[in-house]
Order: sequence, then structure tokens, then C-alpha cells
Amino acid sequence: MTEEILKVIKEAGKIILNAHDISFDIESKQGDANFVTQYDTQVQDFLYKELSKIIPNATFIGEEDKNQKKVNNGSCFIIDPIDGTTNFIFDYKHSAISVAFMQNGEIITGYVYNPYLDEVFYAHKGKGAYLNDRPLHMKDIHLKDGIAGFGTSPYYRDMTEQSFALARKLYNRALDIRRSGSAALDICYVAANRYVLFAEFCLSPWDYAAASLIVREAGGNITTMDQQPLTYDKPISILAANPAAYKDFIH
Amino acid sequence: MTEEILKVIKEAGKIILNAHDISFDIESKQGDANFVTQYDTQVQDFLYKELSKIIPNATFIGEEDKNQKKVNNGSCFIIDPIDGTTNFIFDYKHSAISVAFMQNGEIITGYVYNPYLDEVFYAHKGKGAYLNDRPLHMKDIHLKDGIAGFGTSPYYRDMTEQSFALARKLYNRALDIRRSGSAALDICYVAANRYVLFAEFCLSPWDYAAASLIVREAGGNITTMDQQPLTYDKPISILAANPAAYKDFIH
Repeated sequence: MTEEILKVIKEAGKIILNAHDISFDIESKQGDANFVTQYDTQVQDFLYKELSKIIPNATFIGEEDKNQKKVNNGSCFIIDPIDGTTNFIFDYKHSAISVAFMQNGEIITGYVYNPYLDEVFYAHKGKGAYLNDRPLHMKDIHLKDGIAGFGTSPYYRDMTEQSFALARKLYNRALDIRRSGSAALDICYVAANRYVLFAEFCLSPWDYAAASLIVREAGGNITTMDQQPLTYDKPISILAANPAAYKDFIH
Repeated sequence: MTEEILKVIKEAGKIILNAHDISFDIESKQGDANFVTQYDTQVQDFLYKELSKIIPNATFIGEEDKNQKKVNNGSCFIIDPIDGTTNFIFDYKHSAISVAFMQNGEIITGYVYNPYLDEVFYAHKGKGAYLNDRPLHMKDIHLKDGIAGFGTSPYYRDMTEQSFALARKLYNRALDIRRSGSAALDICYVAANRYVLFAEFCLSPWDYAAASLIVREAGGNITTMDQQPLTYDKPISILAANPAAYKDFIH
């Protein structure tokens, strides 16, 4: 199954790479920075069609189909066709396709693909995490010794104060901070030891579903900001880190 | 000359791409996030050697040779072998080689090369700016309609308050903010309309020399934060933007 799904995702990545004139045909969605482009729809339709061939009975959950309660029963894919849509719109070259496969509420496999760098992060429950062909093993690097990523939750402007307090706390305690605009990649960067920690106050399941398994299988911690287990049926906060940096942050 | 210099810079980029085991052999420099790696030195030595063959009488200024007064007389290269060193250390894949050529205090040509995406931004005074083979023409996109980049000046922790005030101002006025960790690329991203604006309170000439010409030749504005012309012989603040976003920011 893995090889088949990887092939589909990499094929979908070509749609992103070949995108042109994307400043046109953009319709605004709720929230200033929230856009849907023709490409978002095109990538999603392609993934739905091709993944349905691989697992015919699976349902789909994504930004365009928000019936999130479906995750708790049977087989389902949670998909973000373009995580980092604003980056995509401005040709910032830091976006990803995120695909998670769940059974009865549990993530079984997760894939996050950055077509610009041709990097695919993926994991299978109980079988480890990988970046392309390289196994990912997280190191215990303390918060003070690495870079920390944060998100601004741009669609929830009432969270601005706490997001900036978070950024400041991370800057005071880490070497430096980054704000990349793709939460799926941010969480995978924790799994690859590029970040020691990533946190954001409000993310949707399609942003973190696949990446959450990748971090866990690489040996890291991922919970809500108040240290609760993740759920996949509503927006929540996310705190992902290697075990040492996780402890540094919560103490 | 352009083709020769581009060839040298792309060759130097291979040293960055082939880097392995970079967590070893790192010696700390002044400031928490300031590192010199064996690769920094290796890329610089390669550039000095090869660029000397192209322009034999030019002097060199860079992080390892801080006699910045040299820029005001004769021919000189201002070089950053790895802009975004902290990113490089953590394999964050967002760093660049920056090379500017100056004559009597004026930037004549500038090159900024990101080997991970194989993107080279370059410009010649009076002859326009390019990204790979594509001419760059900046659009008048207002601050509220685009992404703004900011820097934290991580080596100058006394600037933390004003850096975060800047980040907050940009977040309030723009669609969202980014913090990438490579100022040279940030400024080039303004030239490519990926950002509408970039600002940071303290940067060294090798961070912005090449990119400043690229922004100007693409039709953008670049000054200090208090709207003064750039100098190239000491650290200064940087404000780069398309003309519309520049006006939005200062008013």
C-alpha cells in the first residue's frame, strides 16, 4: 500500500510544481489569509480519486469536507491538499500535501510531501518514521540548543496575544525562532531534528494528522499545549518536540 | 563575467548540498545562535580562490574579514558564504550564498544562490534583476494583501523588544508573517513578490549587499528602518518592500 500511496502523492505534487498564474482565480474564504485556489481543489480531487482506487471503502475528510465526526468509525483519509496555502499563493515554495489514513479513530499511516524539495516524510504505526529513504530518530536536544517553530493561528485573530507570548517565550529560551506557514512541515521538521519544538494554538486535524504519527514514530512527543492527547475530530492546539525540549518547555 | 561568477557560485553551492555530519566540528562564535562550521570556511575559501581568478585585483570582505572600510575604495567582493548558518547547522534547507561586487562604494552586481531550490537571484546595476532566467518586476501589492518577513537580530539580544514590536506591527497589518532565518533570501523574496515587505533591526553588509541591488533593480525600495540610504561599511537596519507596501509601512 505504501508504495502505491507514495506514487499518488508524488504525482499530486506535480500539480503544485506546475502551477502558474496562481494570482488569478483565487476566491477568498473566511479569514484574511484563507484562500482556496483552483489548485487546492485540483489536488484534492486527484487525491480522492486515486486513493479511492487503493482503499475503495474509505471516506474522506479535508478542508472542503468538514464532517470531522467521521474519523471515529471505519476507514478514512484525512487530507490537506496544500498545507501552507498562503505560501503557495505567493510562490513561497514551502507547502506540502498531507495524507493520513485512519481506522476506528487511530492513525495507521501518515505522509507529508514537500514537492519543492522532493522530501516525503512518512510513518506507519509501530514501524517507524522516514524522510525519503532515511529512518528518522529524534535526538534529545534541549530547547536552548536548537531552533523552535511557532504558528500564528492566522485564521483566529483572537489568539494573537497568546501566539505572540508563545513566540516570545520560545525566543527567550531557544537559539532562535522560525515561522514557516506550513504546520504539517513544521511538525515533520521536529521529527527530523530540524526544530527542537513546534507549537501553535489552533490547528485543524488535516494540518497535524499525518505529521503527528511521524513525530511519534520518530520518538518524539506530540500533545495539545495543555499536555492532553490529540483528537482528530475538531481544531486543537499542538505542541510537538523531542522529549528533552518538551520537558524544558512545560517546566 | 556574469556566467563565470554564476558558475563559481553554483559550484560552491554543491559544498553546501553535500555537507554531512555537520553537527560535529562546530565552534561557537559570539552570540548564542552564531556558529562557524567547517563548511562556512570551506565555501568562503573556495569563493575567494575562484573569484580572485575572475577579478584578480579585488579585495574581499566577509564574516571572517571584518575590515569593512575597504568597501569605499577600489574593487571588492562582499561575501556571505552561508547566509542562514543556523538553518544550515540544523539542516533546515533554507540558506544561501551571497556575493556582491562593489566599485568605489557602489554595488555593481549581486548574486544570492539557494542551492536547495537551485534558485539564483541576481542583478546588474542598471540592467535589471533576475530569478534564474526570469526577469523580476515588483508589483505594487499593499501590505494588507501579502506576507511580511521579519528578522529577530538574534546576535543582538538587546534588540528583542523592538524586534517583537516590529513582528506584531507586521502581523496586524499584513496577511501573516514569516521568519526564515536567511536575510539575504528574505530580501530577494521581496524582489520576487513572495513577500510584500521585509524588515530587521541589525544586519551586516554581507547579509544585504547583494540582495539590496536585486530589490532595487526589480523596482523595489530598500533603506534603513528610518528611511536612510544604505551604507556598506557597518551593521545597519534594513527595510525592503515594494513601493506600495513601503508607503503603507512608514505611514
